[in-house]
Amino acid sequence: MKRTHFLLAIVLASQLVTFAQRKETAGKSPWGFNDEIGTLNLMSDVSRLNVLSQIKSGKIYDLSMTYFVGMPSFSALGDPGYQYWLTHTPHGTIVDNPNGLGKTMNSKVSYTGDAISMYTHMGTHIDALNHFGLDGKIWNGFTPEEHLGDKGWKKTGAETIPPIIARGVMIDVKASKGRLPNNYRITSNDLKDALKKQRTRLEPGDIVVIRTGQAEFYQHADHYLDNYPGISLDAVKWLVEDHGIMLLGADNLSFEAFPPERKDNWVPVHTYLLAEKGVMFIEQMNLEELSDDNVYEFAFIAASLKLKGASGSPMRPLAIPINSK
Amino acid sequence: MKRTHFLLAIVLASQLVTFAQRKETAGKSPWGFNDEIGTLNLMSDVSRLNVLSQIKSGKIYDLSMTYFVGMPSFSALGDPGYQYWLTHTPHGTIVDNPNGLGKTMNSKVSYTGDAISMYTHMGTHIDALNHFGLDGKIWNGFTPEEHLGDKGWKKTGAETIPPIIARGVMIDVKASKGRLPNNYRITSNDLKDALKKQRTRLEPGDIVVIRTGQAEFYQHADHYLDNYPGISLDAVKWLVEDHGIMLLGADNLSFEAFPPERKDNWVPVHTYLLAEKGVMFIEQMNLEELSDDNVYEFAFIAASLKLKGASGSPMRPLAIPINSK
Amino acid sequence: MKRTHFLLAIVLASQLVTFAQRKETAGKSPWGFNDEIGTLNLMSDVSRLNVLSQIKSGKIYDLSMTYFVGMPSFSALGDPGYQYWLTHTPHGTIVDNPNGLGKTMNSKVSYTGDAISMYTHMGTHIDALNHFGLDGKIWNGFTPEEHLGDKGWKKTGAETIPPIIARGVMIDVKASKGRLPNNYRITSNDLKDALKKQRTRLEPGDIVVIRTGQAEFYQHADHYLDNYPGISLDAVKWLVEDHGIMLLGADNLSFEAFPPERKDNWVPVHTYLLAEKGVMFIEQMNLEELSDDNVYEFAFIAASLKLKGASGSPMRPLAIPINSK
Amino acid sequence: MKRTHFLLAIVLASQLVTFAQRKETAGKSPWGFNDEIGTLNLMSDVSRLNVLSQIKSGKIYDLSMTYFVGMPSFSALGDPGYQYWLTHTPHGTIVDNPNGLGKTMNSKVSYTGDAISMYTHMGTHIDALNHFGLDGKIWNGFTPEEHLGDKGWKKTGAETIPPIIARGVMIDVKASKGRLPNNYRITSNDLKDALKKQRTRLEPGDIVVIRTGQAEFYQHADHYLDNYPGISLDAVKWLVEDHGIMLLGADNLSFEAFPPERKDNWVPVHTYLLAEKGVMFIEQMNLEELSDDNVYEFAFIAASLKLKGASGSPMRPLAIPINSK
Repeated sequence: MKRTHFLLAIVLASQLVTFAQRKETAGKSPWGFNDEIGTLNLMSDVSRLNVLSQIKSGKIYDLSMTYFVGMPSFSALGDPGYQYWLTHTPHGTIVDNPNGLGKTMNSKVSYTGDAISMYTHMGTHIDALNHFGLDGKIWNGFTPEEHLGDKGWKKTGAETIPPIIARGVMIDVKASKGRLPNNYRITSNDLKDALKKQRTRLEPGDIVVIRTGQAEFYQHADHYLDNYPGISLDAVKWLVEDHGIMLLGADNLSFEAFPPERKDNWVPVHTYLLAEKGVMFIEQMNLEELSDDNVYEFAFIAASLKLKGASGSPMRPLAIPINSK
Repeated sequence: MKRTHFLLAIVLASQLVTFAQRKETAGKSPWGFNDEIGTLNLMSDVSRLNVLSQIKSGKIYDLSMTYFVGMPSFSALGDPGYQYWLTHTPHGTIVDNPNGLGKTMNSKVSYTGDAISMYTHMGTHIDALNHFGLDGKIWNGFTPEEHLGDKGWKKTGAETIPPIIARGVMIDVKASKGRLPNNYRITSNDLKDALKKQRTRLEPGDIVVIRTGQAEFYQHADHYLDNYPGISLDAVKWLVEDHGIMLLGADNLSFEAFPPERKDNWVPVHTYLLAEKGVMFIEQMNLEELSDDNVYEFAFIAASLKLKGASGSPMRPLAIPINSK
Repeated sequence: MKRTHFLLAIVLASQLVTFAQRKETAGKSPWGFNDEIGTLNLMSDVSRLNVLSQIKSGKIYDLSMTYFVGMPSFSALGDPGYQYWLTHTPHGTIVDNPNGLGKTMNSKVSYTGDAISMYTHMGTHIDALNHFGLDGKIWNGFTPEEHLGDKGWKKTGAETIPPIIARGVMIDVKASKGRLPNNYRITSNDLKDALKKQRTRLEPGDIVVIRTGQAEFYQHADHYLDNYPGISLDAVKWLVEDHGIMLLGADNLSFEAFPPERKDNWVPVHTYLLAEKGVMFIEQMNLEELSDDNVYEFAFIAASLKLKGASGSPMRPLAIPINSK
Repeated sequence: MKRTHFLLAIVLASQLVTFAQRKETAGKSPWGFNDEIGTLNLMSDVSRLNVLSQIKSGKIYDLSMTYFVGMPSFSALGDPGYQYWLTHTPHGTIVDNPNGLGKTMNSKVSYTGDAISMYTHMGTHIDALNHFGLDGKIWNGFTPEEHLGDKGWKKTGAETIPPIIARGVMIDVKASKGRLPNNYRITSNDLKDALKKQRTRLEPGDIVVIRTGQAEFYQHADHYLDNYPGISLDAVKWLVEDHGIMLLGADNLSFEAFPPERKDNWVPVHTYLLAEKGVMFIEQMNLEELSDDNVYEFAFIAASLKLKGASGSPMRPLAIPINSK
């Protein structure tokens, strides 16, 4: 989304949406005043072994996108896009002789090295609980005054996110409803309909990933970022409060859609999940192959990079089909 | 290691090592002229299901290190260290008003965003087959003239590395031999001794990770990088040629030790594995907890970031103990 | 300009422009086979003292733009935009305690540090002669095979560009012709007309900077980059071949306009100046104040950063009005 | 300087230095409550024309260092070193075809592009007044609470630093005293002695640059950064308070020497100049050629990049000898 479109969408929202609104406030963790991982506390050795024991296939589904120069990224507020560059090449090493070993050695040993830079919320990644707070507090009441240094948060940084192994469920809204309109917000009824068609049941502690179909456009950043559909507040509340899910995910840029549903909050789904409920979520997933094969239940296995203090982290989640009955 | 030490070590090696030497040359893949993943072709749905079926525990071992500013990195040839920076903070958003929504909105919605940059061979990561070639060819004969653009390799880039699930074996040389001397090269006999003590047997297709003990110093970059022990050519040949292992790993910076074993090749273990044999390997692993719990056999599950064209990629591997007999 | 627009413009050009075309080829320097600075050789102690002696004012005109996050940049081919980030802040230093000196010290000594990254062709900058070559050769026949390593060119890198002091002339085409149409190409006749109106005469060795008026939109990157007017091949040939100017400049993104004038060359003005004639040029200048004050002749003083091996470099040129009799 | 040495030096200082100490506090500007440039207010059209009128030579002295990968940088607190990378090369463009124009076009038009990243306090650069404050206030009482956003300071950022043209004086302490000992602090008497030998007199509004001789080691970063000599508090007070100089400079990394002169302030010269007195200074200058030619008085002309909000900025200052009679 271009900066101008992004800002226009938000301004429009702040003028038009005027219904009465629930008070939003950062949540206190039921897992104690030191808790930094929210609902990921639902995992245990028992829960993990339970799902791993149900694996019935050696076929792996890779739920992640590739990082490449020109890939989609949220740049409306100035964040850097993905950059990749070569630091050493076979020919360049011969010309530069950086190790001082000369032309014969560097012609024989053909060295390639490279480097990257990126916003932490690019490609398939998980949002850490510190990504959005409310009124200056993040999940569990941690404050920037006490816990935010120049190298990120001392609390709930991405390095605290544990490896994630749990039952995963894919809700294929795209298959259930067809192509979603621009900026469409998926409702709880959409989820119920899709689950019924799939004959899938949710269980407490599940990881729920929602297919909007937007991943189809991933190779064309402008299209992928343009007025994508997302998940509504109603839908996430139903998942969190009625079903006790542990983690969420979707295949679009920012999980929720724009313009926002509240006039006083430009990212109300983000703050509801991260700050109020301690529920992380994964963005920009690739759910196309799961959909192609009608795989709705799986062992979800993922481990994001432990980026100290960070508000998000790249991850390459895997799905392995399970026997869940 | 400081640049001066690094260069001195290599120059010394090129003067002192003078034994007769085997001809080194980039290998052709037995998996076809298009092959880009070498021995990772040994994985199949059957092999993966086989190891997953043996899982006996829900306890997960995280074999990776945390990324933080000041972490160890190979900088002797000018590559960038790990950088982390905040792009949005709750207070800064109020001062800057980047979204144009004003002080009330930005005081309520407390936004944190951040970015990173890094050499691709930092922290726990896997080396792609293009990282080192011989005489201008990488694994399977691909050449930079044809396949290396400004955004990396068109062949064997990190995006081609599949998710990795296989039987893993940790060989605890540190436990077997005690603290290793500076620059010590672990031999095949060291591996045999440790395996005997552990009562572990290697199987074809295994992932073998070797504990040197160096990870103990990871928080102190200067010490971690200083004259670390590594794995000898003899040891890797024994693993690859006699045991048909699929993937290697270790807990030090560069797998092999310096000064190099050949006077005509400053990284002979790298080129042997990557260019000659098509065997990737993982560096800077954290094997301390496996050692603490005497866990030697496990389901190894890992998925590196799909960095298009890259010569290496961060990964956070997991180990789950198995019943292997 | 968006990537899609940029590419479309070029493709259109390659289909539509079909006139007979001059052979283009990298030039050999009249200043010797080692020459790396082309027409900047025209400067001497005498020429510099000559112009400095004519200074009649202590009023300085700053011809440069400010660097800020969100500033215009050429990103159609994946180059990084300008990034700025804080590495130390007064509050962050207290939280992080990076120097180990504790809260009292870090509360007293309020430290701010920051870092930047950027494409070298951003803001007001000069193009080095290696920026564009023809058929694999840059100015004076230097080749990438011999002279391009991983850290840039060994020849004609930005570090070789000397401080520049010479007579400067501003040609105010915007004032002369009024608002220029989208993609307009300024001709030699446009320059003649403007010079006549200004009553300015060109002299050999001059620095000629051309005002298109595009700088007016600099704070709005989308507008500034959108179908800007530029300088035609005819105009630059007239300046270089008929008037022996030494250096050029303009106030738009890329000096020349798109789509290109030749179907077999997407940047024919760049290659004509840099590769064929050894004439550097400055882009994204700020000429508004000169225009406001009708200052057309001045001592031009500038010194670009000595970025080793680079194809371009930021510069903040100054103009000081002279008595040119 | 290595991180360990740096921190050790500071800790030693905080233990050993115990003399009675003056109260340090951020200064209020005599140029008004909006002033952001401190003593640079001393410049005027008259002062500039005065010095420009005294120019007697067309010979230019370049007082700056080259930027290159591996150049000296202050990294003890995690700041990034200088990085340079190629984004486009003639060969890579042919392989990648980033513009979609194909092999014939990209073989003809040989494109080189590149990018950089750096700490703002690298190479020859000027420190902005916000670089160091005291007790949470910078020069003129500006506070981070009100004026520091995520993209830097709203006050006294590097974009506010004007082009600088004034009489410059080089004090060649290295020539006067010979090689300075490690960590030596140049005193006001050292300056007086050197000025007497040079037969140079200071005038109010001067730019004074001090040669320690450390620039000799610039190509060897470890040596350059190792226990370099610097300028004492006594010396800068004499220059500022007794002579009314406008701007300072030196040829070492951080102007002052370590360990610091006060136990309660790890950079007392920085805070004295920037926060208390509103005097900026330039670091890492190249004064070798001035010394070789015994040039002590000159027109100093420099213009740092206008990096919005930044705490420092690269600059390439020029010196042109004058007749100061």
